[in-house]
Amino acid sequence: MNKILDKITWNKDGLVAAIIQEKDSKDILMMAWMNKESLLKTLEIGQTVYYSRSRQKLWHKGAESGQFQKIHSIQLDCDGDALLITVTQEKGIACHTGRHSCFYYTFNTEQNSWEINQ
Amino acid sequence: MNKILDKITWNKDGLVAAIIQEKDSKDILMMAWMNKESLLKTLEIGQTVYYSRSRQKLWHKGAESGQFQKIHSIQLDCDGDALLITVTQEKGIACHTGRHSCFYYTFNTEQNSWEINQ
Repeated sequence: MNKILDKITWNKDGLVAAIIQEKDSKDILMMAWMNKESLLKTLEIGQTVYYSRSRQKLWHKGAESGQFQKIHSIQLDCDGDALLITVTQEKGIACHTGRHSCFYYTFNTEQNSWEINQ
Repeated sequence: MNKILDKITWNKDGLVAAIIQEKDSKDILMMAWMNKESLLKTLEIGQTVYYSRSRQKLWHKGAESGQFQKIHSIQLDCDGDALLITVTQEKGIACHTGRHSCFYYTFNTEQNSWEINQ
């Protein structure tokens, strides 16, 4: 039995948030969701496998785009409802828009607007 | 009208995930949740204000502990359901356990166990 499931507090949909951080740059690349099956698959293959809430099925990141994420470490927070996973990002691109990171909007408080920052 | 609310995809409970990153170290300190009111309050006072799901009320981080988080930047991801907020962490401690970061469990794949890493 894999013990990784033990300490996790799954939400009412059976999911846990996964924050993805690039190992060397420490940039945050994305946030996605995992269920038990996707987390076990992630461990098994050493690459991120998410649960797609919109498509309601497992989503092996990079299977179509080649933008695989190789796992380095998996951490869990104090209340067990968020994972922090460090990865090496294949091609340096995590976002489906072709950007390095999915977090490409920055709020400009002076202009009172969201701006695209890369 | 504050435009920060516009691009956010609130979940069915009216919340958005907030990933908190320490500005200089780029360490991930914690993940918490915000509703519209807490995000507007965060902007207004320049410190993180969350929505506590367990207590069902706003939670000004540091109000009791002194561990305030000063806001530097607020970013949003491509599908609008996660915020990445960079902060300066007062006292260097984000976790209620007295640790720097809430992500203090690391999964050891060889031992098949969660270990406390700080």
